[in-house]
Amino acid sequence: MAEPKQERAVKTRAIILRAAAEVFDEFGFSGASISKIMKRAGMTQGGMYFHFKSKEALALAVMTSQADDLALPPGPDGLQRVIDITFDLAYQLQHNTLFRAGVRLAVEQGEFGLQDDSAYQQWADVFAAQFRAARATGDLLPEVDEDELGRVLVGAYSGTQLFSQISSGRADLPERITSLWRYLLPGVATAEARAGLRTDAARAELVGKASR
Amino acid sequence: MAEPKQERAVKTRAIILRAAAEVFDEFGFSGASISKIMKRAGMTQGGMYFHFKSKEALALAVMTSQADDLALPPGPDGLQRVIDITFDLAYQLQHNTLFRAGVRLAVEQGEFGLQDDSAYQQWADVFAAQFRAARATGDLLPEVDEDELGRVLVGAYSGTQLFSQISSGRADLPERITSLWRYLLPGVATAEARAGLRTDAARAELVGKASR
Repeated sequence: MAEPKQERAVKTRAIILRAAAEVFDEFGFSGASISKIMKRAGMTQGGMYFHFKSKEALALAVMTSQADDLALPPGPDGLQRVIDITFDLAYQLQHNTLFRAGVRLAVEQGEFGLQDDSAYQQWADVFAAQFRAARATGDLLPEVDEDELGRVLVGAYSGTQLFSQISSGRADLPERITSLWRYLLPGVATAEARAGLRTDAARAELVGKASR
Repeated sequence: MAEPKQERAVKTRAIILRAAAEVFDEFGFSGASISKIMKRAGMTQGGMYFHFKSKEALALAVMTSQADDLALPPGPDGLQRVIDITFDLAYQLQHNTLFRAGVRLAVEQGEFGLQDDSAYQQWADVFAAQFRAARATGDLLPEVDEDELGRVLVGAYSGTQLFSQISSGRADLPERITSLWRYLLPGVATAEARAGLRTDAARAELVGKASR
């Protein structure tokens, strides 16, 4: 039996997105071109145009689909899990093309005239949900605002990975995340909760490999 | 009497840098061109080429000269001063073209094939010096490593300004800096020192206007 038309369209879109991510990851936005992406995806101009009208539209889709490939690391919701997410993302930035390209485009979007914070906001919501779980188990300090802290963490994390990328091609990102938590946790978690949390840099490999 | 040759060269270089910053700020790296910058600076091709051989060289110079225009905000070295620097930088990002262009290029440099962390490292050193002053007056927690915290603050600040730029064109940057300090200070300063520190968002305008 033939594949239903809609299912095929979804698959085709995913193939194009993956090809676009590879090309953006390798060449950046200016160096990428629709024709390079078409070739990589094995797609005709018509097929391509049906899904995406421009390089800008492709870049926006890669930016906002950056998390589609990702499963959250295992374990109950709460502080250890939000810490593990930040270490898993370090591993994904080192190994996952769609995610790395999405983050690169989200950071460099000014260069191609975009101003879209939805990728940032999505992560702020993911983090805030973990902080709310931590509130429920009594691990958060009373003065923490979960949504505000979610935004602070997205900002702090974005710049940390950027500095690490420019300094070391992200080789030192796990160590920099350990440092970030070292100074953030005293303003976030009770002393009792902090005593049980693992924030060592080896966590990146451990969580990253386990989570898929 | 004629201007000494070297003094003239320094002035010319400053004029070119200012023109380059304006053009990069307005058009981004890809949209900028040597000829646009020449025109803005009122410079001939020969005069331009004597100082800078390429658009990449100009971008690198704007990136690494981003702080040349800036004076640190007044007051004794220490925690209030490092806080005031972060608020002053918010004001400068809103009002100072050379600084804004330098930061933009430092963030988007991946798009034009550069990987130079010296602008980030310069700020990490400025922050670390303030933390060392705070150590001398007993305001830092014993477990703080001043150089590590300097790097953490540069990373956290870079991403905070980027998220704010994409969300609000940096209109909400002062509030986001207040939020960042809210969660960072408990891991940095003694409770006694914290009680005396001002981190309200109105600080940006206050410090920004006073510091030049």
